[in-house]
Amino acid sequence: MNRYVKVPDGYLMVLRQKDNVFYELEKFAKGENIPSANFTGMGFVNIRFGFFDFKTKKYDPKDFSAVELVSMHGTLAWKKDSVSIHAHGVVADKTFQAFGGHILDATVGTGSVEILITPHDKVFERKKDESIGADVLSIDPVP
Amino acid sequence: MNRYVKVPDGYLMVLRQKDNVFYELEKFAKGENIPSANFTGMGFVNIRFGFFDFKTKKYDPKDFSAVELVSMHGTLAWKKDSVSIHAHGVVADKTFQAFGGHILDATVGTGSVEILITPHDKVFERKKDESIGADVLSIDPVP
Amino acid sequence: MNRYVKVPDGYLMVLRQKDNVFYELEKFAKGENIPSANFTGMGFVNIRFGFFDFKTKKYDPKDFSAVELVSMHGTLAWKKDSVSIHAHGVVADKTFQAFGGHILDATVGTGSVEILITPHDKVFERKKDESIGADVLSIDPVP
Repeated sequence: MNRYVKVPDGYLMVLRQKDNVFYELEKFAKGENIPSANFTGMGFVNIRFGFFDFKTKKYDPKDFSAVELVSMHGTLAWKKDSVSIHAHGVVADKTFQAFGGHILDATVGTGSVEILITPHDKVFERKKDESIGADVLSIDPVP
Repeated sequence: MNRYVKVPDGYLMVLRQKDNVFYELEKFAKGENIPSANFTGMGFVNIRFGFFDFKTKKYDPKDFSAVELVSMHGTLAWKKDSVSIHAHGVVADKTFQAFGGHILDATVGTGSVEILITPHDKVFERKKDESIGADVLSIDPVP
Repeated sequence: MNRYVKVPDGYLMVLRQKDNVFYELEKFAKGENIPSANFTGMGFVNIRFGFFDFKTKKYDPKDFSAVELVSMHGTLAWKKDSVSIHAHGVVADKTFQAFGGHILDATVGTGSVEILITPHDKVFERKKDESIGADVLSIDPVP
């Protein structure tokens, strides 16, 4: 089943139950040879957030199951030959309480995830900012 | 009073106190003959969220009054001749605690709601996915 | 260091630690002579939200430090010769609990803030709606 379609502003992607969001975005980026892109989305997911600990340089993870993905914002760039996705999300459970964070992983739950991808015409890379010990999107286009 | 204006990326809609968000989006979609669209928004609302119960196939609703709409993401498609809107929102009250969910209904509170609508050039329909018992956006364009 | 780059859909802005989000957006709007724009973003911030009190006509503020900015939606318009920014955000702390509101001020924390700015081709102004005592974005273009 095809998971995305070309629209004037870029691509509309609709993922189905059990699809992995990052896997599909990576496959898309490589398949369509996307230089870089912004994307927004929403849906129903099982998701893992991580909060970056600047001392250990690791993400402390937490899983949320069967939650509405009420907001997702991200950018798609590169680290050399690898697709590098940076995405933040907000989810809500059946009590409607909201949780959010840096997305480490997400798969579609009993529903779908709709993503609008807005491609750019330049290749951008994520590079380590040594002053903070974390990757930052470089807006100097890769020649 | 006119509620939207054409911009290069689509349409900028500004709704005023007591306007119903879905009613205005439907009126817009029919009036401008929009094949389908993505939209994002924010504002100040009275809103009803619903969490889909996959056993009963119904939404368990909850109302939030006089809250900031801090994020809204949605898609505008069709079910035969009817406009079909799917939107997720995040709201925050005066304590800044955030709540979110699938939007069942929303009216503008003592403020406004600003929406950017990005139209697509193809007609997409929402169709029931029998495996999950819920509607999913089909990306096979309607001829 | 340059903080934004032109992309087909508008501008991609990447702010670095200690940058003030509104200051950089204002500088951008004036420097690029932007008639008006919508923007979305995410990152890591120190932020001040405010909840508008319709009796006192003032914002009750609250600060959140070292939090993920998991969603930001805003519009960039004018009040006479001044840039007028209206932005709503959602943040999450290390427990992943989400908070949101009208953004009064935000600076980049130990990370970055990535913003996609979608310019419009018309000058829009924010004007006081006397019936609610708050500013509302006017979609009547300024000649």
